[in-house]
Amino acid sequence: MVTRLSNYFLRTLREDPSDAEVTSHRLLVRAGYIRRQAPGVFAWLPIGLRVKNKIEQIIREEMAAAGAHEVHFPALLPREPYEITNRWTEYGDALFRLHDRKGADYLLAPTHEEAFTLLVKDLYGSYKDLPLSIFQIQDKYRDEARPRAGLLRGREFTMKDAYSFDYTDAGLDASYQAQRDAYERIFQRLGLEYVIVKADAGAMGGSRSEEFLHPTPVGEDTFVRSDHGYAANVEAFTTVVPEALPIEGLPEAVVRDTPDTPTIQTLVDVANAQAPRDGEPWTAADTLKNVVLALTHLDGTRELVIVGLPGDRDVDLKRAEVAFAPAEVEAATAEDFAKHPGLVKGYIGPGDQRGLVLGENGSTGIRYVLDPRVVDGTSWITGANVEGKHVFGLVAGRDFTADGVVETAAVREGDEAPDGSGPVHLARGMEIGHVFQLGRKYAEALGLKVLDENGKLVTVTMGSYGIGVTRALAIIAEGNNDEKGLIWPENVAPFDAYVIATGRDQAVFEAADGVAQALEGAGYDVLYDNRPKVSPGVKFGDAELIGVPKIVIVGRGVADGVVELWDRRSGERTEVPIAEVVERLQAQRTI
Amino acid sequence: MVTRLSNYFLRTLREDPSDAEVTSHRLLVRAGYIRRQAPGVFAWLPIGLRVKNKIEQIIREEMAAAGAHEVHFPALLPREPYEITNRWTEYGDALFRLHDRKGADYLLAPTHEEAFTLLVKDLYGSYKDLPLSIFQIQDKYRDEARPRAGLLRGREFTMKDAYSFDYTDAGLDASYQAQRDAYERIFQRLGLEYVIVKADAGAMGGSRSEEFLHPTPVGEDTFVRSDHGYAANVEAFTTVVPEALPIEGLPEAVVRDTPDTPTIQTLVDVANAQAPRDGEPWTAADTLKNVVLALTHLDGTRELVIVGLPGDRDVDLKRAEVAFAPAEVEAATAEDFAKHPGLVKGYIGPGDQRGLVLGENGSTGIRYVLDPRVVDGTSWITGANVEGKHVFGLVAGRDFTADGVVETAAVREGDEAPDGSGPVHLARGMEIGHVFQLGRKYAEALGLKVLDENGKLVTVTMGSYGIGVTRALAIIAEGNNDEKGLIWPENVAPFDAYVIATGRDQAVFEAADGVAQALEGAGYDVLYDNRPKVSPGVKFGDAELIGVPKIVIVGRGVADGVVELWDRRSGERTEVPIAEVVERLQAQRTI
Repeated sequence: MVTRLSNYFLRTLREDPSDAEVTSHRLLVRAGYIRRQAPGVFAWLPIGLRVKNKIEQIIREEMAAAGAHEVHFPALLPREPYEITNRWTEYGDALFRLHDRKGADYLLAPTHEEAFTLLVKDLYGSYKDLPLSIFQIQDKYRDEARPRAGLLRGREFTMKDAYSFDYTDAGLDASYQAQRDAYERIFQRLGLEYVIVKADAGAMGGSRSEEFLHPTPVGEDTFVRSDHGYAANVEAFTTVVPEALPIEGLPEAVVRDTPDTPTIQTLVDVANAQAPRDGEPWTAADTLKNVVLALTHLDGTRELVIVGLPGDRDVDLKRAEVAFAPAEVEAATAEDFAKHPGLVKGYIGPGDQRGLVLGENGSTGIRYVLDPRVVDGTSWITGANVEGKHVFGLVAGRDFTADGVVETAAVREGDEAPDGSGPVHLARGMEIGHVFQLGRKYAEALGLKVLDENGKLVTVTMGSYGIGVTRALAIIAEGNNDEKGLIWPENVAPFDAYVIATGRDQAVFEAADGVAQALEGAGYDVLYDNRPKVSPGVKFGDAELIGVPKIVIVGRGVADGVVELWDRRSGERTEVPIAEVVERLQAQRTI
Repeated sequence: MVTRLSNYFLRTLREDPSDAEVTSHRLLVRAGYIRRQAPGVFAWLPIGLRVKNKIEQIIREEMAAAGAHEVHFPALLPREPYEITNRWTEYGDALFRLHDRKGADYLLAPTHEEAFTLLVKDLYGSYKDLPLSIFQIQDKYRDEARPRAGLLRGREFTMKDAYSFDYTDAGLDASYQAQRDAYERIFQRLGLEYVIVKADAGAMGGSRSEEFLHPTPVGEDTFVRSDHGYAANVEAFTTVVPEALPIEGLPEAVVRDTPDTPTIQTLVDVANAQAPRDGEPWTAADTLKNVVLALTHLDGTRELVIVGLPGDRDVDLKRAEVAFAPAEVEAATAEDFAKHPGLVKGYIGPGDQRGLVLGENGSTGIRYVLDPRVVDGTSWITGANVEGKHVFGLVAGRDFTADGVVETAAVREGDEAPDGSGPVHLARGMEIGHVFQLGRKYAEALGLKVLDENGKLVTVTMGSYGIGVTRALAIIAEGNNDEKGLIWPENVAPFDAYVIATGRDQAVFEAADGVAQALEGAGYDVLYDNRPKVSPGVKFGDAELIGVPKIVIVGRGVADGVVELWDRRSGERTEVPIAEVVERLQAQRTI
């Protein structure tokens, strides 16, 4: 088809939108692909809708190839199923809630696990019905605290979400693998670089979970990878736990006066001055830092927890959220400290409830947990729970124990990968897909069971698989542009070719009409800039901004029977005989 | 493509859903097309999604042919623009309202006039940009008081909504006509019978307005048509006003004692007993009935209005709503009467504020309006505003006047069409489309202006054009079925052909595979019932329920090289040689 720019609903803008924080947002608005309606809420203009449809078509084809059937659920869903799985509460402020005229509670679904589970429960009853994979491409809602970066994090966004249903673990593994393979093909076809990382199960519950991250400096996720195959989201990274050391023969702990040493750095300095170590000086790694965190539980109660970790490590609140899920985690506030006079800020040590290092103010009554590196037999300089005092040579497993071990320490460049594949590197990425073994959590909660071969009712095991369609589009735009504008990969470009008629010569317009039609005849979708009174400079600028990869410039050369092929990506312009345009473009085609 | 039933996500149900009030709902659920999620909210299963997609595709093609460009707006929109146009309030309880985590108000859009207007305002500035028609196919929300009848009146439903933008009235007429023509083509292609009726502008404001109604006894709209071309929604019907009669020489009005005559019928009986008329007896048409209505205005105030109309007519509250728009209208309650002792129930006459027929209790202070048939010079038997008294020979224009003329009387079979095309018949219909000249209402409210040829800013004039996609699907189902199930028209059928392998004979399944593949090769989308252990009876029943119009039964005849073609609509079965299946089906194809 030929779409003529003279009456196409497309307006490019000269100015960057004032609220655009990232390139994709800036260019998609300027080039007339999307238009903001509210924070994190966008309208799709005709040319934008074309790209979105192309991405969705690729996803549909690969879902069909993976044996998944397409369905379509409403965005508006009743509260009850989400109440049963606890997500009505767990989602917190991120859930758009509303009620109807009769006062019944509804939500705008952020994902559809509950609805899919209930649908299958409704219709299926036998192991013979399984495996089943069903998916939809649908608009979802999440009331983000800071909707930003255009389509990269919207409050209304399009997702492909698929769900698999099996009655054996092996079946789930196979369904999971089929979706995972489909994701690889989808991202390859979209030209989207990706890293598959181990992910945390998060609020969804479940077991095996991997994210497809697109490595990009604007990414919100930090992930780690080793040179030999390990990759994980930092939330999912697990520490290599050192072996315990012998306790016997270690010197006794000594409490020392250490006035004005409220920080690790001041403590290290004082330690090296007061009690220098043979060989090498004390470092932060020899101190045990005790960080007070405040957890907010689902029922709204607030609990303080002290985390003990090597003094050269910081708490990563995202990792702490995972460790303490589903509670929300933040650093304890001044108010929290005020309520617990036993907590002597700057001098906190392993919990006095262990009865070993008592502060003058008595018991704090607070849970005390340790970083996995603090194994039995390690000896530490740490707070004595008394203002101006620290204890030296406090040995884990001898002088103190803990209420548990949790992973809250930030992952660092060079930390060892848990699979033994060597040190890891840190990188930033943006989640573009997520495959997830939910297991039996939702089926259990909502009562989805089938009869197995022996006529016994068994609970179904599920997987959940998501791709952010609008986010993928933004990431493609993010990675395919230059200072002039967008440069779409061929298979998601809004048009297959872009024909420009320059000048005012009637013969040029006739020749350009001919080129556009010849391309249409060869099955091309053509955007044809036939605007009669627009200067070549403006037309070239618009073509560059819009970013169709193959451009044909029809101008004065028509008199000599030639036009120019302009490759948007390389910038290269080549003169070719008019009659060869179709053939030349077809030869360059990669899809 | 061949879709195999053995692993297709489709389950037919033996029982009708308990909440199904209409045939389409019952059959679409039983045949596995849709599934209820909440009142008026449905999920689309794979086979249902296919039909929906086909309808949308037909609409897209005709929109493109009409020069309309496709866009896609969010369902979630901010309050402000709807506040400016007053629809935030006007929509009342039918609007789903919600707020985000910051407390900002949002709505789930019932239609998108505001958003489209603002988009065009954003991007366009010159008459040269116009005309413009843009559309979307999108899920909309209306919190219906009584969601019922399945997809015929849902709370979440899919609509095609288009909007046109012009700067002259003639331009709007042309854009309107283009959409109207497209609608005719769409409904013809969908095989949907329709009547185009004049419609009331309703809460949308604006001028010319027509509805496409599908005539059906289950329709919610009543419309009228004459045998000679007139058609209108009853809300839009206008009465042929009789000519005024001479007042001179009419006898004076006489007040009579008429105890126990609170109804028109008792009044007619008493009149014929007390004061019989020469020639023919009094009938209800000789009495003037005075009905008290209660209006609720937008600002929440309640106002009583008395409507005087011939005693053989009833007030139609829907027509009254139009007459008194945007107020809501209901019959006055006992409480209303209690507040106005001047209103003597059963004996109300033309308003005493006119000073002619005063009740003993003094002024009622209530607005009095008349039906257009009560022209000057007509003489009436009516209430005297005194318990047990009526007045005879009260003449309009002599003894009483009114505060206005309003159309509230119900339209009756045989009423004269306003265009002189003769008496009208009443029929019921279901709205499937609406074309609407909004005029400048929205552009004015939201400040959408363009520069005209003379460099002068002029307000844009708009049209709004809607088709209920999911409703159209339900109406097609409603009109295409029999006691066995659905019978889809070819061009919206979920599949082009349905192949059934019967029995357990390996040769039959091989032959059926071959037939399915041969049809696929000819470009057919095939649903193939290859289930190995299902009886022919069940397979035939499912095929009838599902309603693909062309069925191929592959069974024992395979030994003789023949299969049966089964026409779902006629029920006819024809034996044909296997090798001729494709050819025979192609010969029958009408699309």
